[in-house]
Amino acid sequence: MKRRDFFKNGALTAMGLSVLNPLETHSTPILDSEFKNKKAKNIIIIVSDGMSIGTLNMADLYLSRKTGKGSNWLQLYKENKVSRALMDMASASSIVTDSAAASSSWGGGKRISNGAINVSSNGEQHLPIWQKFKQAGKKAGCVTTVPITHATPAGFCVNSKKRNAQEKIAEKYLAQQFDVMMGGGHKYFSAETRSDKKDMYKAFKKAGYTVAKSRKKMLAASTTKPLLGVFANNGLPYSKDREQNKELLKSVPTLAEMTKKAIDNMKNHPNGFVLQVEAGKVDWAAHGNDIAGLIYDQAAHDEAIKVAMDFAEKDQNTLVIITTDHGNANPGVIYGHQANDNFDSIQNYKHTNDWVLNGLGKESSISQIKERISYANNFSVTDDEAKLLLSYYSNLITEDGLYNPKHLPFKPLAEIQKQYNSVGWISMQHSADYVELAMYGPGSQLLKPFIKNTDLHYLMLQAAEVENKF
Amino acid sequence: MKRRDFFKNGALTAMGLSVLNPLETHSTPILDSEFKNKKAKNIIIIVSDGMSIGTLNMADLYLSRKTGKGSNWLQLYKENKVSRALMDMASASSIVTDSAAASSSWGGGKRISNGAINVSSNGEQHLPIWQKFKQAGKKAGCVTTVPITHATPAGFCVNSKKRNAQEKIAEKYLAQQFDVMMGGGHKYFSAETRSDKKDMYKAFKKAGYTVAKSRKKMLAASTTKPLLGVFANNGLPYSKDREQNKELLKSVPTLAEMTKKAIDNMKNHPNGFVLQVEAGKVDWAAHGNDIAGLIYDQAAHDEAIKVAMDFAEKDQNTLVIITTDHGNANPGVIYGHQANDNFDSIQNYKHTNDWVLNGLGKESSISQIKERISYANNFSVTDDEAKLLLSYYSNLITEDGLYNPKHLPFKPLAEIQKQYNSVGWISMQHSADYVELAMYGPGSQLLKPFIKNTDLHYLMLQAAEVENKF
Repeated sequence: MKRRDFFKNGALTAMGLSVLNPLETHSTPILDSEFKNKKAKNIIIIVSDGMSIGTLNMADLYLSRKTGKGSNWLQLYKENKVSRALMDMASASSIVTDSAAASSSWGGGKRISNGAINVSSNGEQHLPIWQKFKQAGKKAGCVTTVPITHATPAGFCVNSKKRNAQEKIAEKYLAQQFDVMMGGGHKYFSAETRSDKKDMYKAFKKAGYTVAKSRKKMLAASTTKPLLGVFANNGLPYSKDREQNKELLKSVPTLAEMTKKAIDNMKNHPNGFVLQVEAGKVDWAAHGNDIAGLIYDQAAHDEAIKVAMDFAEKDQNTLVIITTDHGNANPGVIYGHQANDNFDSIQNYKHTNDWVLNGLGKESSISQIKERISYANNFSVTDDEAKLLLSYYSNLITEDGLYNPKHLPFKPLAEIQKQYNSVGWISMQHSADYVELAMYGPGSQLLKPFIKNTDLHYLMLQAAEVENKF
Repeated sequence: MKRRDFFKNGALTAMGLSVLNPLETHSTPILDSEFKNKKAKNIIIIVSDGMSIGTLNMADLYLSRKTGKGSNWLQLYKENKVSRALMDMASASSIVTDSAAASSSWGGGKRISNGAINVSSNGEQHLPIWQKFKQAGKKAGCVTTVPITHATPAGFCVNSKKRNAQEKIAEKYLAQQFDVMMGGGHKYFSAETRSDKKDMYKAFKKAGYTVAKSRKKMLAASTTKPLLGVFANNGLPYSKDREQNKELLKSVPTLAEMTKKAIDNMKNHPNGFVLQVEAGKVDWAAHGNDIAGLIYDQAAHDEAIKVAMDFAEKDQNTLVIITTDHGNANPGVIYGHQANDNFDSIQNYKHTNDWVLNGLGKESSISQIKERISYANNFSVTDDEAKLLLSYYSNLITEDGLYNPKHLPFKPLAEIQKQYNSVGWISMQHSADYVELAMYGPGSQLLKPFIKNTDLHYLMLQAAEVENKF
């Protein structure tokens, strides 16, 4: 008889309670005793950008129901391995932050206005935390599924009045000599597409970097040289679309693979390393109310958590921080008789809405639209629904939204899908929700159950015992 | 110079770090050491029904921005007084629970199908936990802002194949002799409205109860007799509407007042007591996408937390559990230039949407609609928007939804308001989100960071050292 059944069946005396605990463990995380007074030589912070609590929930539900095993993130909770907090991510200008101000709050230790990177509205610049750690002798890097010059990595690395100055941000990375920088954003590095026609790849090579533009080259790269990896013109493809395309499987690494490579590259440094890992397209998917983009990229983020935790549990000197920078669209599974079946139907999706909508045009026929959605999502839209979607391509109706330069009908498609997958969204924008934060390893004992975003800056310095004297 | 500034300014040596912690405390809750191996004589569980994480966030933001002090709930986190977990509330029939199956999972320790109270679909009955505690010699009660016969209190108290059998549930309460039962639901007690014409008030009085039908009577009630309090025909009025109405202020108590009275009534019992407190109309407000209903009733829930904590901190023998039974509508503040001002405009709302819409009818004029909304919400709707709302009253368009028997246009009104308050909703229904759970006092050390709803049943028994032998 298992302990738990024993208790449930009532054959337990009150005296034995503290021994035969049916919940089997104490709430104090294991690490509290293990890591107390220990210094974090390394820090890995893993950010799912724009992850509402419903995104964490749906990825965990998806994995549980498909594979019988939930997410690695929540597995850490089930095994009582981490400290947890809610974090208030407000910026200086708004209760709802953008990713630039959010990353800057962690990176610079100050709340600034939305849109800037570690520069206050009075022009004051705040030294980014990866520069602080570089000065303290550590290696430092970032990997992401969006352009490596995008807000979340940039907020740990550089100062920029405008988050959109991504060409300049690429130059600033080189000037600071960060050790591993990988993601998308070819257009900000290539001489052909940069406004100043500078060849940033050449400049990085000249400075001693390995430059990898494919998964194969990245995997084979030397771990004794700094590494720049750029695998897409803009963001990397969504995990779900990559999975269905042999070319993309070859050319583009996963977030977990980039994470592993970055760790391998920096782990033998005697003074340790700091690494930011970002599942940036979780945010883009939320902006597009794109459920397959969202869940499968959140699952890819979850694989990166496993890579970091496998290293940290062996290493015992690494603080792992797992969080998000803000909610986005607050998605969730909606109550109803068909909720389970509807939600499970997402397991059969072959592609994201991004793939569906970018493959259509104003010349598409109603039957082409119906076929494409039926192929991607395994349900049939009506003629009227197909006509509605088509009307957006002829600009009869327009649709805006971040990361939607072609004004494609992401919102109406999500509305149509809702009937079949029971997933709803409050908007196509960030939300003010306090966010989930978990920590493993030395320094995690410093975390209180509710913190402000800026507290994380000082916690990282303190965990690593790096004096804030810059 | 404050410690924090001292650290931020970098004048701190690495040696001093463990003493001069800028986060000022350790993550292990205070209570861990205080309450270890201590028995919970009393348990108070405070449930905000249907509280998405955005509801907790918005109530805290509202209070912070209006009063400079956030919610009592999150203050417990800031002071590191509680253990926390995420809780999976799925029912036997769905990943999205209803309140009956949710309360039954805690109350009976088994997942059952939506719609029932502690009865499995094979007919098996599960002994409700308040009956277990009564058998163990404790007093037991429930207070709520919805009918006292509603799903959440019923799930701790009785068995019923159907949650809607509220007249029968009233009789079952009497049979079990619960000590304090207060809320709404006059129609399930009154001889005039019950289908069997039984006078349940008379029956409770005959059994020795004080019956209170007004706030004054309730406040004056003897604490030496069991107490039935019924203050509304159905649910109690929303806090915001009560606040604006002198009659309601006199006739209806707040949730905090009912909580205080229930504690006072039961606290001197030598074997201790168990009490469930429910902010039931937070759920109804979410079903109606009714932001003033939601935020102000969540704030009323927060006042009840303070009452329970004031008692528990003094008593030192009381486990306080603070949670919700499921998400609902996943509301949140949406990004935008006007997000702060828009959200703050809710501070000027005089009434709920429930009040606005129930005061209109098909005979209302466009100008009456405009005036009523302008009075309640401090913004002007257009003629077209007023016409749209009016069309629902003439049944030109119909609107369904739980707790909306008159088919009033709650959804279109929330859509109109969104332009002015920046609050969005995914639906008018429950969501599958994992929910927030916090505990203070003896037994809180048993909580792991992620649990299933049913675990809470066994945790309560174990915390109180009541053997599960029934």
